[in-house]
Amino acid sequence: MSILVVGSVAFDSVETPFGKADNVLGGSATYFSTAASYFSEVKLVAVVGEDFPDEHIDFLKSKGVDVDGLKKMQGKTFRWKGRYDYDLNEAHTLATHLNVFEKFQPEVPEAYRKSSYVFLANIDPDIQWNVLEQVKKPKFVACDTMNFWIEGKPEALKRLLSKVDLFVLNEGEAREFAKEPNLIKASKKILSYGPKTVIIKRGEYGALMFNGG
Amino acid sequence: MSILVVGSVAFDSVETPFGKADNVLGGSATYFSTAASYFSEVKLVAVVGEDFPDEHIDFLKSKGVDVDGLKKMQGKTFRWKGRYDYDLNEAHTLATHLNVFEKFQPEVPEAYRKSSYVFLANIDPDIQWNVLEQVKKPKFVACDTMNFWIEGKPEALKRLLSKVDLFVLNEGEAREFAKEPNLIKASKKILSYGPKTVIIKRGEYGALMFNGG
Repeated sequence: MSILVVGSVAFDSVETPFGKADNVLGGSATYFSTAASYFSEVKLVAVVGEDFPDEHIDFLKSKGVDVDGLKKMQGKTFRWKGRYDYDLNEAHTLATHLNVFEKFQPEVPEAYRKSSYVFLANIDPDIQWNVLEQVKKPKFVACDTMNFWIEGKPEALKRLLSKVDLFVLNEGEAREFAKEPNLIKASKKILSYGPKTVIIKRGEYGALMFNGG
Repeated sequence: MSILVVGSVAFDSVETPFGKADNVLGGSATYFSTAASYFSEVKLVAVVGEDFPDEHIDFLKSKGVDVDGLKKMQGKTFRWKGRYDYDLNEAHTLATHLNVFEKFQPEVPEAYRKSSYVFLANIDPDIQWNVLEQVKKPKFVACDTMNFWIEGKPEALKRLLSKVDLFVLNEGEAREFAKEPNLIKASKKILSYGPKTVIIKRGEYGALMFNGG
């Protein structure tokens, strides 16, 4: 078994009241690939810029991640800047620079196209869709997102969800996407867009799983 | 049994992504008095301005709250303006106008000075101290605060805590006050300032109680 993942590979700058880190390795596909590598083979589809150092690619390789689908393009790597307040539980985005992701048309390597399991990590829902279109007959598709896309591309996200089995988002994003403060009602609305299961993450407090049965 | 409470009686303006309310009755002493009135007699010490309508005082009276210690002064009533984001769990202060509380020197009515139980609801820690000094021999003193005072008057707050049995604050405030992200360590530090018990509120997720016993 292996998992095909598309998402961001990025430089993150993060600050909290207790410390900060600038331009460290981040991105949804980086986090997913690293975690999943302990349980499964992982095939990564993403893009970085010319400024991306080999040591970060070597890190992914050291975890056994197949990086044949990781393209290097002219331009700068995706950057995200965020802040956490004293509650330490809610990320506040300060800046999002898509950079090379603005023009990225992912091409899934031939060897990846028969993948049974696909994880659409947080990235532009049009890129998520684009990758999914190139996979022949996936058995199970999971998808994550964030408020940036909920606000910027809600219709593209809804279109994507019609092809998704499991959708993952945090509680604030669920309220914003469903335009509904009650998480039970919000999850029902989100299930109506297509996913069989919705997981609402609540940070350190756990998660809620809703199954559309 | 009765409880003496000092705190703010205020006009609040609150907004969330799902609605807003302007200049509604608020304030820490209002909330405490109303809730406590279901379990005990309540004696209120606070101040409002000339703009405060009788209907709000009638509301407190209708709950059986003794308002002999509620002064009306020249000037405007305390105002707080805040915002909640989609997580709906963390208040973000937009504006705090102390108004009449800037010059308030509370005078505890003679009949209140033998109170055994005192609740120092969220307000300037110097006003909390001032009230506590006028109470003869309280059996049990509880105290609440917020980030506005933790940032503005940390030393006054620490002085006050040496006379407090139970201290209540939320998790972000605990981290900020103790300058410590770990809540276990933060609570130990706060207990060292004097309280026998610290309760750390976590919004809808419950609370943690630490006993210095």
